[in-house]
Amino acid sequence: MGPRQLQARDLLVSIDRSSRAPIARQIEDQLRRAIRTGMLIGGSQLPSTRALAQDLSVSRGVVVRAYAQLSTEGYIDLRQGANPSVRRPVEVTRESAAPREIQRVRRPRFDLRAGVPDLGVFPRHAWLRSQRQALMSAPDLDLGYIDSRGLERLRVQIADYVGRARGVATTPDRVLVTAGSTHSLSLIARALARRGARTIGFENPSHMVLHEVAERAGLRPVGFPVDEEGLVVEELIGASVPAVVVSPAHQFPTGHALSGSRRAALARWAVDNDALIIEDDYDAEFRYDRASVGALHGLAPERVIYLGSASKTLAPGLRIGWAVLPPSFDVQIVQELSRSILQMSTFDQLAFETFLRAGELDRHLRKMRVVYRQRRDAVVRALEEELPDVPVGGIAAGLHLVLELGSYELEQSVYAASREQSIALESISEHALPGYEGPYGLVIGYGPLSEPAIREAIRELARVLTVLENRADSGPMLRGVA
Amino acid sequence: MGPRQLQARDLLVSIDRSSRAPIARQIEDQLRRAIRTGMLIGGSQLPSTRALAQDLSVSRGVVVRAYAQLSTEGYIDLRQGANPSVRRPVEVTRESAAPREIQRVRRPRFDLRAGVPDLGVFPRHAWLRSQRQALMSAPDLDLGYIDSRGLERLRVQIADYVGRARGVATTPDRVLVTAGSTHSLSLIARALARRGARTIGFENPSHMVLHEVAERAGLRPVGFPVDEEGLVVEELIGASVPAVVVSPAHQFPTGHALSGSRRAALARWAVDNDALIIEDDYDAEFRYDRASVGALHGLAPERVIYLGSASKTLAPGLRIGWAVLPPSFDVQIVQELSRSILQMSTFDQLAFETFLRAGELDRHLRKMRVVYRQRRDAVVRALEEELPDVPVGGIAAGLHLVLELGSYELEQSVYAASREQSIALESISEHALPGYEGPYGLVIGYGPLSEPAIREAIRELARVLTVLENRADSGPMLRGVA
Repeated sequence: MGPRQLQARDLLVSIDRSSRAPIARQIEDQLRRAIRTGMLIGGSQLPSTRALAQDLSVSRGVVVRAYAQLSTEGYIDLRQGANPSVRRPVEVTRESAAPREIQRVRRPRFDLRAGVPDLGVFPRHAWLRSQRQALMSAPDLDLGYIDSRGLERLRVQIADYVGRARGVATTPDRVLVTAGSTHSLSLIARALARRGARTIGFENPSHMVLHEVAERAGLRPVGFPVDEEGLVVEELIGASVPAVVVSPAHQFPTGHALSGSRRAALARWAVDNDALIIEDDYDAEFRYDRASVGALHGLAPERVIYLGSASKTLAPGLRIGWAVLPPSFDVQIVQELSRSILQMSTFDQLAFETFLRAGELDRHLRKMRVVYRQRRDAVVRALEEELPDVPVGGIAAGLHLVLELGSYELEQSVYAASREQSIALESISEHALPGYEGPYGLVIGYGPLSEPAIREAIRELARVLTVLENRADSGPMLRGVA
Repeated sequence: MGPRQLQARDLLVSIDRSSRAPIARQIEDQLRRAIRTGMLIGGSQLPSTRALAQDLSVSRGVVVRAYAQLSTEGYIDLRQGANPSVRRPVEVTRESAAPREIQRVRRPRFDLRAGVPDLGVFPRHAWLRSQRQALMSAPDLDLGYIDSRGLERLRVQIADYVGRARGVATTPDRVLVTAGSTHSLSLIARALARRGARTIGFENPSHMVLHEVAERAGLRPVGFPVDEEGLVVEELIGASVPAVVVSPAHQFPTGHALSGSRRAALARWAVDNDALIIEDDYDAEFRYDRASVGALHGLAPERVIYLGSASKTLAPGLRIGWAVLPPSFDVQIVQELSRSILQMSTFDQLAFETFLRAGELDRHLRKMRVVYRQRRDAVVRALEEELPDVPVGGIAAGLHLVLELGSYELEQSVYAASREQSIALESISEHALPGYEGPYGLVIGYGPLSEPAIREAIRELARVLTVLENRADSGPMLRGVA
């Protein structure tokens, strides 16, 4: 069927006089849809405004308005002295034949994955109070485009918080507000790459997402071993990496804390080699066996980029983090941030500033330290009862611990068997970089779990190990390592 | 002065028994500070715990705790059988001798810069209501790590909004939540570069920030001329750019709208050349002379990436924007977003979802359309009275118009003279790409200004032009163009 002169009745336009939509709009909408979907093909002559008006029993002005709108939008062609015509169809909307499969993630029966705090205890009321107070008192200009470093008032509060809670002595002009520690690292990695760096050091193992971030910036991650005292600093000597990422407070995933002598050695390495330490102060707020250990930052403030975030202390959805930059580096990082065209939401910054200033974060942390400590104790107790022969590590801090398994094969078989039983957890070796030689084990995150849920999950995990042990071929393995 | 055996009295540690800080903490803090600032030098032997305890009249356990903490943090060295000693100083904190100059931007007397809405009318109460309702009813999981495309509920609301208000027929799975249109463009530019693109087309002139974004992604911006009907589409033919960025609703900075026939021609160009149109639907919500013109998107939905944001309709500080992606491209863009490790704050997404669903954005826009229209009228009236001979363009939509000046020299001299009088505004040619040949003029943004402020600013601007005119050498220039 080729283009032809359409009569009014061919258009299948109908008017609903009970509708609140203006009549011109109704005509316009129906014609637009017909053109888009290919029902009205290009080149078709539309009826004159007079003919269509008569056919629909509407005033001619109504049809003139509808046609004018469609012409302005590019759907029809109005020429003096000729009938209006449908423009050659540029493209007909494909009906989305197969709507994209929505990935429905099957939720595991037992979720022991690390890295998420208990979202159920997020202090919603206190946060709302802060939002209200902040928004009601913010000057208009704060709602516009602000300094790409972040709201100045918030940087003052963050400088105060990291000084008070983490021993990081700094000034607001060295603080950068970011969307979290991983975002901070992505900015730093890009700035390092722009400076000419090709590699970046990591603890081996360390969180695989961080390795990806480095790779995307064009840096090759180089792993350095970790033992009971944390990163083995001697291995860095002579390795010529321009920077190393460490998590001194609670190494991920092994759970060890960096010892005092290693801290001093690391700072010395950075100064001697003109290198940077990127201190990911992960989990530092939750230390159970003693008063929290201050940040490494103080040992070499000119050499350390300190990273913190509210993702573990409050909620990842806030997307609020911060970096404390040494003067030698901050211009470059801030440039990366402004290059990324991505300032953080002022509204959240305003609320967080009020929240910090009112002492709400300290209050929440005092409460959560007790809660998480009890959960940690519940996991340790349950493991002692259910799996007395398997050693446990990394219990001094944070929201996860490690079930130590003596070999890669053992780790993998327990990991696979757990998954089969719908127990979600992470293995140490999935966070390994090339050259990794252990230790091996499973990471058990307990942040979001109630104590009964913890007991149940550990009991299920023990069942998995018992089944494995009872298989003839793997029987001796477990006893061997314990 | 070399290292030496310190006596307790050398340490200058003092205890404040009225303080709420524990005594061990007081000792620890003072020693840490002394080491950091270089007052206690590396290698110095500290007094034994017994000696210091005696000297300070505190129990020995208190000093043991303080020393242990400093050892854990790497400041001192505790060896069995030897006195504790200060570690060799790695680095002494430089006192920040010259605190960074805070750039105090002198505020202009008259601010006619474009691009910012009136922040004083941001609907704070309605926003707070949305925040409260959203946060109080959000499931816990929404506060965690969410889909990097954005909260699903919000994408449903955005798909509905762009369909209803802008004629963009789409589904939530094609919607991506970003931090604004510029952020959207930066993701698109990087995805294009990764596909092998070297260039990207722009209207010439168009906003210079967009050119920078393209350049940072490694794309060379190529300009195509603009006339009264918007982008001159014929110029694109044969130019082999893989994509072109347009603002059909209200071209920035010239203020023209893309005509119906140009819209159709542009869509045809994209289909014929397997190219993309990036539709920056800038200022589309504010159309004054007629009903708003639907987005170009509908003419070639498989070829158009549609960009919108809340920066002009609500506030830039929200950092909320959206892109509607054609199926041929969305996977790549979403990958860029997740590569940038930057999801948007869930909290703002939750609030915006509630705000949209409650019809608050529509309500705010209805109100602001009237307000901005009145301001537009006030500028036009003031210009007619004060500068009757100078033509004005781009008045049909948006938050700015253009004072047309016939030559580059004239534009620049008026621009310079205005700045001298502390009138801040933008020139057209600062947004030009290479090869630009006019038109020239000044961009006058009136979004944030009250009507009396507008009159005063235009009167001041007229004074500037009159002074210029009265100078013997430039007298004829103005009359010449009018």
